[in-house]
Amino acid sequence: MITKQDIVDKILVGHMEQPTATAEAFAPSNIALCKYWGKRDVELNLPVTSSLSISLGKLGSRCRLSFCNERDQVILNGEELANDSTFVVRLSQYLDLFRKEQHSRYRIETENTIPTAAGFASSASGFASIVIALNKLHGWNLPDQKLSILARLGSGSASRSLWQGFVEWHVGEDDEQGMDSFAEPLQASTWPELKIGLLVLEAGEKEIGSRAAMHRTVETSQLYKSWPEKVNQDMAKLKQAIATKDFDHLGATAESNALTMHATMMAAQPPVLYWLPQSVTTMKKVWQCRHEGLPLYFTMDAGPNIKLLFLEKDKSTIINKFPSLVIA
Amino acid sequence: MITKQDIVDKILVGHMEQPTATAEAFAPSNIALCKYWGKRDVELNLPVTSSLSISLGKLGSRCRLSFCNERDQVILNGEELANDSTFVVRLSQYLDLFRKEQHSRYRIETENTIPTAAGFASSASGFASIVIALNKLHGWNLPDQKLSILARLGSGSASRSLWQGFVEWHVGEDDEQGMDSFAEPLQASTWPELKIGLLVLEAGEKEIGSRAAMHRTVETSQLYKSWPEKVNQDMAKLKQAIATKDFDHLGATAESNALTMHATMMAAQPPVLYWLPQSVTTMKKVWQCRHEGLPLYFTMDAGPNIKLLFLEKDKSTIINKFPSLVIA
Repeated sequence: MITKQDIVDKILVGHMEQPTATAEAFAPSNIALCKYWGKRDVELNLPVTSSLSISLGKLGSRCRLSFCNERDQVILNGEELANDSTFVVRLSQYLDLFRKEQHSRYRIETENTIPTAAGFASSASGFASIVIALNKLHGWNLPDQKLSILARLGSGSASRSLWQGFVEWHVGEDDEQGMDSFAEPLQASTWPELKIGLLVLEAGEKEIGSRAAMHRTVETSQLYKSWPEKVNQDMAKLKQAIATKDFDHLGATAESNALTMHATMMAAQPPVLYWLPQSVTTMKKVWQCRHEGLPLYFTMDAGPNIKLLFLEKDKSTIINKFPSLVIA
Repeated sequence: MITKQDIVDKILVGHMEQPTATAEAFAPSNIALCKYWGKRDVELNLPVTSSLSISLGKLGSRCRLSFCNERDQVILNGEELANDSTFVVRLSQYLDLFRKEQHSRYRIETENTIPTAAGFASSASGFASIVIALNKLHGWNLPDQKLSILARLGSGSASRSLWQGFVEWHVGEDDEQGMDSFAEPLQASTWPELKIGLLVLEAGEKEIGSRAAMHRTVETSQLYKSWPEKVNQDMAKLKQAIATKDFDHLGATAESNALTMHATMMAAQPPVLYWLPQSVTTMKKVWQCRHEGLPLYFTMDAGPNIKLLFLEKDKSTIINKFPSLVIA
């Protein structure tokens, strides 16, 4: 089996180390309009389908990286984390892939520029910012596609967090090494009027993590078999909607894609239901708004929170209806 | 195109009219453990898949039928319905299929033995009881399979309401006339310890009727493509669970089947979501009960209400936890 280390070694070969003392980077969070749901290779985070996201501007992760001795140090939002915390263990294992010498260690200062309670996933922007900083710190000078692959090895959706705007993560055809499964910006696509807002319905711990939920869905959900075809259709629809700036087409497609992802989970055995009672209330409220003529759609990730999609022109109306909205 | 009338004529040919003055019948409601969801022929109510139900004993519909003149008279639960009410119009259209002479009309007194507010579907037991009564009134002496087909022409799930216990509705292979798409009791299967209870979450009008929801799902839901294979698996599992009286196997299969049906709806465009916030609360409460060791499962039909599946031995525990439960 090909390991993460094999891929990192392959990517770094020929790229001279030209280390600096310290490196800084920022990467935005991203919200998938067409979801990444299911891996065809768990070790390499190779997806079953392509996916498409929009990045969240200034909301994301900042990272300052330097070398240090003895042990990795992780400072998150100004506080040093315990060495045995889940986050530090996962991060250290990832950094093992890049240590120039066995004994070299990293000091990572990272900050999320999103209110933590806002519930935007930070692993995507976190891993992406670390990869950008690693590239600078070591002086590898890697091209973006390679950085995207490295970010993917940390967290699948991190592959999409290296850019602003619309980003497509290509499924790729290389099942052995996944060297063609990277993200890149959708060409000639800007849409400043498109807005994303987040409604936080719960800050608590999820009953099942998204990796486990994804795995269970792929393994046990009868409906998952229809998911790849759904994605193929939605990717084409979204690209067309973006190209023509057709907001209703974009919103309806993104909403349907998210509902379908959640539907595949509910059909898993045992079922995975991230929804809270308020998730249902909120979805119905969005539909009611739309029924009344307001162009408003939602998307949801592997959790109960709901992200609203709307246009700049309707911002104040929507804030009125959803006062707790956090707008990206 | 083959019409309902063609099928009725085919079934009645050779069956002499030997009318009596009045005929009475009762048919039980039924709850599908493996759902009927999707038609391959809308005119003849031919299903995409087989389905399997359990009948609800004394809960169902009683019907007293006689001939009368001028116009059909429908008395529901003791009150005569207006001639232009949806129910009377639908029933009269159905009865048009059976009138011996153009001008003959029926008087139908029907009563539901379920508290109306309990939300058990009454169209299945209603049409089934009318078919049994029609057979007696006209003196046709039709075999059960033919009666099941006639009930099917009124409402798909009515085909399963002619018997108590477990009933299988065969999908059949005759796509033109559907003469092999009838229900019959599952052989040698009784399970008196198996109980069904209903939690009424809303007595209000549904936003979309189940016929329209089914149609929209078949036409627009990408996930519906995986539904027939799910049903094939669940039918086999349910039959095995019934044969071996394996309650957990039965409950888990029925619950998964219902969730998967609702999942196919959510992926329709526009989405169909029958759930209320309390539906989510109730599902999670059922899962919590199970987590605590109580063998309890649910099923849901095209509406927000939840039906609980449990064993007689746990009845008092479950009534304690769900005080509003209506037990069949």
